[in-house]
Amino acid sequence: MNRTDTPVTVIGLGLMGQALAGAFLKAGHPTTVWNRTTAKADGLVARGARLAPTVGDAVRAGSLTLICVTDYQAVRELFGTGDIELDGTTLVNLTSGDSAQARETARWAEQRGARYLDGAVMAVPPAIGTPEAVILHSGPQAYFDAHKPTLDALGTVTHVGADHGLASLYDVAGLAMMWSVLNAWLQGTALLRTAGVDAATYAPFAQRIAAGVAHWLPGYAEQIDSGSFPAEVSALETDARAMAHLIEESEAVGVNAELPKLFKAMADRSIAAGHGGEQYPVLIEEFSRPGPGDD
Amino acid sequence: MNRTDTPVTVIGLGLMGQALAGAFLKAGHPTTVWNRTTAKADGLVARGARLAPTVGDAVRAGSLTLICVTDYQAVRELFGTGDIELDGTTLVNLTSGDSAQARETARWAEQRGARYLDGAVMAVPPAIGTPEAVILHSGPQAYFDAHKPTLDALGTVTHVGADHGLASLYDVAGLAMMWSVLNAWLQGTALLRTAGVDAATYAPFAQRIAAGVAHWLPGYAEQIDSGSFPAEVSALETDARAMAHLIEESEAVGVNAELPKLFKAMADRSIAAGHGGEQYPVLIEEFSRPGPGDD
Repeated sequence: MNRTDTPVTVIGLGLMGQALAGAFLKAGHPTTVWNRTTAKADGLVARGARLAPTVGDAVRAGSLTLICVTDYQAVRELFGTGDIELDGTTLVNLTSGDSAQARETARWAEQRGARYLDGAVMAVPPAIGTPEAVILHSGPQAYFDAHKPTLDALGTVTHVGADHGLASLYDVAGLAMMWSVLNAWLQGTALLRTAGVDAATYAPFAQRIAAGVAHWLPGYAEQIDSGSFPAEVSALETDARAMAHLIEESEAVGVNAELPKLFKAMADRSIAAGHGGEQYPVLIEEFSRPGPGDD
Repeated sequence: MNRTDTPVTVIGLGLMGQALAGAFLKAGHPTTVWNRTTAKADGLVARGARLAPTVGDAVRAGSLTLICVTDYQAVRELFGTGDIELDGTTLVNLTSGDSAQARETARWAEQRGARYLDGAVMAVPPAIGTPEAVILHSGPQAYFDAHKPTLDALGTVTHVGADHGLASLYDVAGLAMMWSVLNAWLQGTALLRTAGVDAATYAPFAQRIAAGVAHWLPGYAEQIDSGSFPAEVSALETDARAMAHLIEESEAVGVNAELPKLFKAMADRSIAAGHGGEQYPVLIEEFSRPGPGDD
């Protein structure tokens, strides 16, 4: 159940900020907004939002303030002036940034007396306000619990942990999965198109494989958490041979082979380190350290 | 419904061949086997299989002959002698190979008068005989339909098309998806472990993302088949900026960044070619041609 009588504030009215404020308005929340360029508030004001003249005024109006600006530097600039009273306020910062910035900003906000949650929006602006919009929050659980009935207006809101850096880490981890599934599908689509199979024909097959493999993850996670990788299903060296086969097939039909080559390079390094007889999740050791070309 | 009275032959008794013959025996099929090293047939003979003295004798015993040997070269060597009568026989070749080898072997088998299906086993030997074992077949649909009731004993058997190269192409495409999901999960697990989150905690999140993204594929496939990539949800240049963020976060916490760097390199090439304002599936153009380091 959403609570719709809580006054909320949204700072930053880019496409995402406008969508967030719009979802609060739609849910019936008294909504105050602020943006450096005030014209961006016009549509929201027409829908009932109040445009605050200053950030300080905007923060005072809401029992909860969402921040969605360009970057963390902009957050500090906007709130940097000492005359903005943050003591007792709850800030939910949905600005894109990394885990270190989130933790640093949490310390700054706490020094100013604010309750601080860091968040990551895993959605495009048009999805905000629907269950498809997943929004992750990290920071003290009690702060999240206190405002979840209000935040529910924005989509599927979840708390991923007390460490303020977690929302950002889960966000980029999820993006890595997104691009990986898309790229694997594109690799397969490119291969099958060489035989005249269209993308629509291949897509359901790719979908089943992705969902099927995803089901293995909890079991494989146990191997990582126990640090023991017995080859219950197959050994890494068997995977590496099949990777070579994918590379050869891709090159034979003129399809890009960079992705399988990287897969094989990582597997080969792990095999060279003596893990060829262990199971695939042993590669966590390669993923957990910089690669040859990383900074 | 399986038919259990059809005599079948299995040539090649490695771990996979033994599993295939075992599944036929379990389903009640009169099963003839052959292997260069006859000792590998002992367990199957004890369970009721007949060990044929020659390949030719083995092929004559079955109305259907499965071949599962080391490679396509071995297939041609075993059947190369002209005294093996293949006219009117159905061969199902489950030997690992590429699409070109499958098509070439199909032509050879047809010249010898055999009906030929090429197959790919997407399963480990212990799964054979269960629905989890997916076995793909390509070649004339009528050949597959005629033997599907028998092949059903092996697992979930499907026909992917008349082109004999398709089973191999679907197989490697599926493997690319498998490793991609696993690697993305390992990337995310490595990132989250830096914040003390264990693999078991992260796995269900990764699972939901993978399944969620897989649902987009049929819609994205329409863009590829129509050759038009309007940025309905987001533009490739937005993805590229988020990829940079994943790279930075990975490097900042000391996690391998090779995978996101490759993703970004491919996206950057597409953006340089003028596709930054289009949607992600436009990358099919990069996947459909050799990469800078490919042969």
